[in-house]
Amino acid sequence: MPLTTLKRKLIGTPLKTAEAAHERLSNFAALAVFSSDALSSVAYATEEILLVLVLAGSAGLPKSLPISVAIAALLLIVATSYRQTIPAYPSGGGAYIVAKENLGVYPGLIAGAALLIDYVLTVAVSVAAGVAAITSALPALHPHRIGLGILFIALITLANLRGVKESGKIFAIPTYLFIASFAMMIGVGFAKSFFAGETAAVEQTFAPPTQELGLFLLLRAFASGCTALTGVEAISNGIPAFKYPEARNASATLAWMAGILLTLFLGITVLAHFYSVVPRHGETLVSQLARNILGTGALYYVIQAATAMILILAANTSYADFPRLASILARDQFLPHQLTSRGDRLVFSNGIIALGLVASALIWLFRGETHALIPLYAVGVFLSFTLSQAGMVRRWLSLRTPGWQRAVTINGLGAISTAVVLSVIAATKFIHGAWIVIALIPLMITGFRKIHAHYMLMTQQLSLQGFEPQKPQEQIVLVPVSGIHRGVVTALQYARTLSPHVEAVYVDLDVEATEALRLKWGLWAGGIELMILDSPYRSVLRPLLEYIEGVEQRHPDALITVVLPQVVPARWWHNLLHNQTAWFIRGALLFKKRVIVITDIALHLTE
Amino acid sequence: MPLTTLKRKLIGTPLKTAEAAHERLSNFAALAVFSSDALSSVAYATEEILLVLVLAGSAGLPKSLPISVAIAALLLIVATSYRQTIPAYPSGGGAYIVAKENLGVYPGLIAGAALLIDYVLTVAVSVAAGVAAITSALPALHPHRIGLGILFIALITLANLRGVKESGKIFAIPTYLFIASFAMMIGVGFAKSFFAGETAAVEQTFAPPTQELGLFLLLRAFASGCTALTGVEAISNGIPAFKYPEARNASATLAWMAGILLTLFLGITVLAHFYSVVPRHGETLVSQLARNILGTGALYYVIQAATAMILILAANTSYADFPRLASILARDQFLPHQLTSRGDRLVFSNGIIALGLVASALIWLFRGETHALIPLYAVGVFLSFTLSQAGMVRRWLSLRTPGWQRAVTINGLGAISTAVVLSVIAATKFIHGAWIVIALIPLMITGFRKIHAHYMLMTQQLSLQGFEPQKPQEQIVLVPVSGIHRGVVTALQYARTLSPHVEAVYVDLDVEATEALRLKWGLWAGGIELMILDSPYRSVLRPLLEYIEGVEQRHPDALITVVLPQVVPARWWHNLLHNQTAWFIRGALLFKKRVIVITDIALHLTE
Repeated sequence: MPLTTLKRKLIGTPLKTAEAAHERLSNFAALAVFSSDALSSVAYATEEILLVLVLAGSAGLPKSLPISVAIAALLLIVATSYRQTIPAYPSGGGAYIVAKENLGVYPGLIAGAALLIDYVLTVAVSVAAGVAAITSALPALHPHRIGLGILFIALITLANLRGVKESGKIFAIPTYLFIASFAMMIGVGFAKSFFAGETAAVEQTFAPPTQELGLFLLLRAFASGCTALTGVEAISNGIPAFKYPEARNASATLAWMAGILLTLFLGITVLAHFYSVVPRHGETLVSQLARNILGTGALYYVIQAATAMILILAANTSYADFPRLASILARDQFLPHQLTSRGDRLVFSNGIIALGLVASALIWLFRGETHALIPLYAVGVFLSFTLSQAGMVRRWLSLRTPGWQRAVTINGLGAISTAVVLSVIAATKFIHGAWIVIALIPLMITGFRKIHAHYMLMTQQLSLQGFEPQKPQEQIVLVPVSGIHRGVVTALQYARTLSPHVEAVYVDLDVEATEALRLKWGLWAGGIELMILDSPYRSVLRPLLEYIEGVEQRHPDALITVVLPQVVPARWWHNLLHNQTAWFIRGALLFKKRVIVITDIALHLTE
Repeated sequence: MPLTTLKRKLIGTPLKTAEAAHERLSNFAALAVFSSDALSSVAYATEEILLVLVLAGSAGLPKSLPISVAIAALLLIVATSYRQTIPAYPSGGGAYIVAKENLGVYPGLIAGAALLIDYVLTVAVSVAAGVAAITSALPALHPHRIGLGILFIALITLANLRGVKESGKIFAIPTYLFIASFAMMIGVGFAKSFFAGETAAVEQTFAPPTQELGLFLLLRAFASGCTALTGVEAISNGIPAFKYPEARNASATLAWMAGILLTLFLGITVLAHFYSVVPRHGETLVSQLARNILGTGALYYVIQAATAMILILAANTSYADFPRLASILARDQFLPHQLTSRGDRLVFSNGIIALGLVASALIWLFRGETHALIPLYAVGVFLSFTLSQAGMVRRWLSLRTPGWQRAVTINGLGAISTAVVLSVIAATKFIHGAWIVIALIPLMITGFRKIHAHYMLMTQQLSLQGFEPQKPQEQIVLVPVSGIHRGVVTALQYARTLSPHVEAVYVDLDVEATEALRLKWGLWAGGIELMILDSPYRSVLRPLLEYIEGVEQRHPDALITVVLPQVVPARWWHNLLHNQTAWFIRGALLFKKRVIVITDIALHLTE
C-alpha cells in the first residue's frame, strides 16, 4: 500500500511501547532545551514596545528604558516565585495541575484553557518572528512569508510526529549560538557607542505622532513588552528531566535562564535607544541593530540565522507541551479520549496534528505578521501565571510547612503582580485582539464541561453496578431484501438459524420487478414470508422504518434483529456503482432505540 | 429537521409515482419547447464565423456570406435527413438508440458519449452566451460574468429538480418573443439599409491581419458557424409529446423550425455585413447590430432580453435530455444505477445535479467566455449526427421498405456531409479545444465498458442458477471487547444464543487496565473465555485481524461471526468523543473474505 509507505517514510517505523525512555539532562543541556521559548522573545519584545511608543512620535521612544526596567523587575519576581514551585511539584507543576489541586477544578480548567491558547500562540508568534528574521536578511522572500510560516510549521509537526528524542544535542547548538552571538553583538554595540562614540546616523522615517504620550500608551507599551516573560515557566514543568538532585538543578537552571534573558532583553533595548533604531516595515528591529553594529558581513547573517533558529526551537517546545497538557485534560475527561493515545512513534499524534493545524490557521488569518498576533499572546500566559502562583499561595496557607510565611510572601507578590499585569494587558490590548482570547476561554471551559458531562453519563450508563442481564426473549428477525440472489438466500438461511420468526421485507418501487420477485420467491425462500411494502414516493428507507416501528409496537417485548444482506465489491471504486442502501439502513437503524442488533451478511464479489 | 424543511422549500413536496403524466403539445407549443436550443445559436453563430475571419483582416469579412450559405445548405440536408427518423422511431429516436440498434453497441456508446458531452456544453455555451447578452446591455456586470453564469446554472438546476411540468406555457412566450423581435430587427435593418441607404458609420477598430485568408481559415470559420446546427435533432427525440398524428405533426414542426432558423441566421449574417459590424470585446455582435439598427431605446433592451431568455431556455433543454440519456445508459448497465432513480419530484435528480456541477465547472474553467467553449462544442454534435444518420442508412438497407432507395439517398447524403463537416471541425479546431472532446470520448467508452463488466460480473456471481444453499455449519462467534460494561455483557449474552463456541477478544494496551479487566471478567462473562492479545505497537486492529486469521486457519469450515458491542451516543457530536473502533473493525472485516457475518449490538446512551 503506497499510502502506508509514504507514512513510514515521513514518520518512521513504529516504536514499541517498551521503547519509551527518559533522557536525563545536564544543567547545560537543560538550559538549552527549556529556555528557547523564553530567550527567543528577545527577538521581538523590544520591537513591540517601540511599536507602541512610536505612535506618540520620537518623544515617546526614550520611555522604552523605564518600561524595560519594569519588565525586568517583573521577570525577577515571577522567576523567584516559580523557583518555589520546583521543590513543591518535583514531578512537574504545570499551571493546570497546581491550580486544580490547590484552587479547585474550575480554576484549573481556566489555567488549562489559557495554556492551550498560549501554546498555540507560541507556535504562531515564534514562527512568524522567525520568518521575519529570515525575510529581513533576504527581503525577496517577504511576499512569501505566509507560505514560509506554514511550511516551517509543517516541518516542525512532521519532526514531532517522528518524535524528537535526541533533544539535548539538537537544542544546545542553536540556543548557545543565539546566546553567544547576541552577547557579542551587545558587547560590540556598547563598546562602539561608548569608546568610539559612534551611534550611527540611522535614517529615521517614522510617521507623525497620532497619539498622546499618556499613561494608557505607556501601559500598552509595557503590556506589549511583557511577551518577554513567555516561557519562563517551562523549567518548572520539566523537572523530571533533570539529573539528581532534580529540584536543586532545576532551580539553578531557572536562575541562569532568568539572568541571561534579563541581560539580553535590557541589552537590546538600551542599544536600540543608543543607536536610535525604530521599528520599520519589512525589517525587524534586531536586524537593523545588527546591521548598524556589525555591518552587513557574515556576522550579520549569523545573528539573523541564530534568531530564526531559536524561534523555530521555541515553536518546537509547544509541540511537547500542548499534546502533553491535552492528554492530561483528556485523561481527566475534559477533552476527547483520542488525545491520550500514543501514535506509532510513541508521541501524542492527535495533539501534535491539532496544534499544527490551528497554528497554521493563525499564521494564515493574521497574514504572518508577528505584530498582529502579539496582542493575543500575553493574556493566556499571565492568566496561567496568576492562577499557578495563587495556587501556590493557597498551598502554603494550608500546609504551613516550615518557612511558609516567606513562601507565601514570595508567591503572593508574584500572584498579585501578574494579576495586575494581566488586567493591564487585557485593558490596553482588548480592542487589538485580546478580546478574542478573553471570549475564547469561557467557550473552551463550556466545551470541557460538556465533554466531561458526556463521559460521566456514559460511565454511569455503562456501569455494571446493579445491572441485571435480561433473559433472552422472543427474537424477531427482519431481512430487508432488494430482490432475490445468492446474497439474499444466504442471509435468509442465516436468519432462520437465529429465530423461527423471520420476515423478509421488500419495498415495491416497480410493479414489474415486484411481480418477478413474487414468482421466484417461493422457490428460494424456504417458506419465509415476504412482506411487500408500498412506497408511493419511491423512498426505500421510509416504508421500511415504518414497518419496523409497526413490528415493535405489536411485539413490545421482542428483541428485533435486522439482517442486512450486503454485496461487497472487489474494488473500492465499484462501491460508487451500488446504491449503498444497506449503509443508509444501518445508519437509520442505529439511531432507533428498539432495534439493538444489526447483522451484515456479506457476499464478496471477485474480479 | 431544518435541512429537510430547506429541501422542501427549494424542491417542493414529493410527488407520487402515479402522478407522472404526459403532456401532449400542439405544434405551436412544441415548436417553442423543442426549438430553443437550435434557434438560440443565432445569438452566437455569426459572431463565431466573423471572429475567425477577422484574423485575416477586413478582407476576410465578406467571406461570411458564402460560408453562411454553405451552413444553411448543410442545415437543410440535416433537417431533411432527420425527418426520416421521425416515422421510423415514433417513440423517440435519439442518436444513442438509433446507432446502437442499427450499427451495434460500440457505435451506440460513441454516440452516447458524444451526446452527453454535447448536452453539458449546450448548458455551458448557452449560459455563457446568455450572460454575454446581459453584460452587453449592462457592461457594469461584465466582471461578474463567471458568478452570474454559475448563478443561472444553479437556478436552472433547482427549477429542474422541482420538475418543469408546465413546459408548453413557459416556453412559448420567450421563444416567440425571440423569433418576433429578431424578425422585426432583421426587417427594420434591411428596410433601413435598402430604402434609406443607411449603413451606419460603425467604429471599426480591429487588429491588423495575423493570418492569411487561406482555405484552412475559411474552413475554420465554417466549422465555428456549424454551431448553428446544434439542437436540430431535438424534435426527433421528443415525438411522443406531440398530438396525434405524432409523426406528421413532428415532421411539420421540424420543417418550420429549420425554416425559421435559416431565416434568422442568414438575416443576421447579411445584416452584419451590411452594417460592417465586427466582433469586439465586451459586447456581442447581436448587441452591436441591435444598437445600430434600433438605437439604444426600449427595443434594444427587448432584443437583449429575448436573446438572454432563449439562451437560458436552450440550456434548460439539456436538463431534460442529459438525465434521460444518462438513465437509459444506466438502465443498459453502462452508467451507475443511481442515475435511473427518480427523486422526490419524479425527475432524475442525480443526473440533473451532475449536469449542473459539470457545466458550472466548465463556466469556471473557461472564464465564462462563449468563444473559448465553442471549439469543444460542435464535435460531439456532428459525431452523433453522423452516427445517427449512418444508423438510418443501415436500417433502410436491411429493411428495404417501399421507397427505401430514396430514404437511403437522403440519409446517406446526410451522413456523408456531417462526417465531412466532423473532420473539418476536428482538424481546424483541434488545437483550440476539440482535442479535449476527442480524447474524452475513448475515456468515457472505457468507463462505460468497465461499469458494464462490473454489473455483468455481479449479476453472474449473484445468480441463483445452479446455486446450492450451504448447510449450516459449525459457527464460531468472536466478540472484540474494549473492557467490561453493560454493552459488552449484553453482546456476550447475545453471542451465546448464536453458538456454544464464543470467544471474547481483548487487545492489551495498558497493563493496569488489562489486570482490572481480568479480575472483573469472571463475575460477568458467564464462563466465556477471554483471549488477551499483545499489541507492542499499540494498534487495536492489527492483533485482532491476526487473531481472526488464526481462527480461520484452525477452523477452515466454520462460519465466523464477529459480534461488535457498540455504544451509540444520544447526540451526533458525541461521536467525536469516542474512538469509533467498532467502525474501523467493521470496515476491515468487510474486506476479509472469510468473515461474512458482522453483528452490531448497540447500547443507546440517553442524555
